[in-house]
Amino acid sequence: MSEITVIGLGAMGTALAEAFLNQGYSVTVWNRSPAKAEALAAKGAIVAVSVEEAVRSSPLIVTCLLVYDTVREALGPVAAALSGRTVVNLTNGTPEQAREMSDWAISHGADYIDGGIMAVPPMIGGPHALILYSGSSQAFDACSGQLGALGTSKYLGEDAGLAPLYDISLLTGMYGMFAGTLQALALTGAAGIPAGAFMPLLASWLQAMQGLLPKWAEQIDSGDHTSDVVSNLGMQADAYVNLIDASRSADVSTELVLPMQSLMKRGVAAGQANADLSSLVALLRLSKQGA
Amino acid sequence: MSEITVIGLGAMGTALAEAFLNQGYSVTVWNRSPAKAEALAAKGAIVAVSVEEAVRSSPLIVTCLLVYDTVREALGPVAAALSGRTVVNLTNGTPEQAREMSDWAISHGADYIDGGIMAVPPMIGGPHALILYSGSSQAFDACSGQLGALGTSKYLGEDAGLAPLYDISLLTGMYGMFAGTLQALALTGAAGIPAGAFMPLLASWLQAMQGLLPKWAEQIDSGDHTSDVVSNLGMQADAYVNLIDASRSADVSTELVLPMQSLMKRGVAAGQANADLSSLVALLRLSKQGA
Repeated sequence: MSEITVIGLGAMGTALAEAFLNQGYSVTVWNRSPAKAEALAAKGAIVAVSVEEAVRSSPLIVTCLLVYDTVREALGPVAAALSGRTVVNLTNGTPEQAREMSDWAISHGADYIDGGIMAVPPMIGGPHALILYSGSSQAFDACSGQLGALGTSKYLGEDAGLAPLYDISLLTGMYGMFAGTLQALALTGAAGIPAGAFMPLLASWLQAMQGLLPKWAEQIDSGDHTSDVVSNLGMQADAYVNLIDASRSADVSTELVLPMQSLMKRGVAAGQANADLSSLVALLRLSKQGA
Repeated sequence: MSEITVIGLGAMGTALAEAFLNQGYSVTVWNRSPAKAEALAAKGAIVAVSVEEAVRSSPLIVTCLLVYDTVREALGPVAAALSGRTVVNLTNGTPEQAREMSDWAISHGADYIDGGIMAVPPMIGGPHALILYSGSSQAFDACSGQLGALGTSKYLGEDAGLAPLYDISLLTGMYGMFAGTLQALALTGAAGIPAGAFMPLLASWLQAMQGLLPKWAEQIDSGDHTSDVVSNLGMQADAYVNLIDASRSADVSTELVLPMQSLMKRGVAAGQANADLSSLVALLRLSKQGA
């Protein structure tokens, strides 16, 4: 018997198992291809010979597989063994997949917690690894000590879909920043400016502009998007033309920057020229259109 | 006679003139509609009755108008008066427009500096107002004391197009971050999560992910994009599907997030699956395709 079972030993699953071991927990591990368990065995993990043995070994089952289908394939045949245990599923997926998995696990007598890991494997076990959780609050309270071994935990609520929703939403914000950065680097690169010369300016500029975002949140929650900075949506939509022109003249693709222009123009056409950019969120919510 | 002339008294031009006055400089101002000069006159500015008088009043002419065409319309008829003076043009425009304006000003015997203001008017005069300059280094050295009244100056080089290029590139990065943030807020908003609950997490996540960008700069400058984090382009392109699916299920438009997916797929198809996202910059540079 052990305290925690980790199922799935890719780079992330391995990091999770190591973090539990480093905190002195007894850990059982299982992976489809058993070779990946060897290094963990050398560090004290018990290697289960089957998923069923892995599940039956611990009250707390942590799964970290490629996709949700793989989790169901692994746990499906041993569903009967889940009863009375807690499943913490840290596999990447969508809110809907998490809710389905939660229903399934609960129907087999398990407590279910879904999680989103906002970190890369080398960060696991350190305070900068943020891990989002949602699902059974009772189960989360009971195992929050163990989960604390993985990083900084943030519990979001009973709806199992919340952790993947926050996870995906944070990634969405990040990919926007990455897309903007790629475009900026293509523009400066086309002019022969080293990325290393431009990046420090971009970093401090992005940080300064993040200072505007808490105001957006207030505006969205209050519904009052009145601009009190001098640069409202209308002025920004006008100036955005220079940004497109600069890419075109530099022979840089505009594919990443055109959709924002089109959204801004729709905002102006919808009468939001004097509002802040936060007013554009409503235009992205298709079911709210014309509501 | 005065030390500095400011031409164009919109919100930004007015803030510039005020910042010069606050530092004790003697300032002449001019605006097409003279009403806007009244508040500045009350603060000690001399109001010129014509552009020509404004230009002839000071050795340093700061222009801040709506677009470059407006600058040419204003200064064109009084070009002869520019000889021996320095023009600092802080009007928003493209690198090409700046180079043309520089050639024109130099052809009339003026020194020319182009500038990009990375700040909103209320910030002008404070240390957080970053102002980028490019053009004549000799002229910049001579007037850097006066320009220091406006905020923190950063001189980028002799090519007058550099300031607008950096300006536009920084804005490009910012709009990417804004687009990602709008999408993230649409997603969380559709699930009934208050923006105020989500925003603090997004802010710290964006800040953490900015930590990856200096590495991108190194990779771009060295040409070696080998991924040493576990999440390479191939894995990220696979996981990006969840992000699109989550938007679709939430009835949130995918217009802002699809182009990044298509770029990532092109990167994978081009054999960059094991590289970092920094490798995508080359795919945006159309003239480098197949080079």
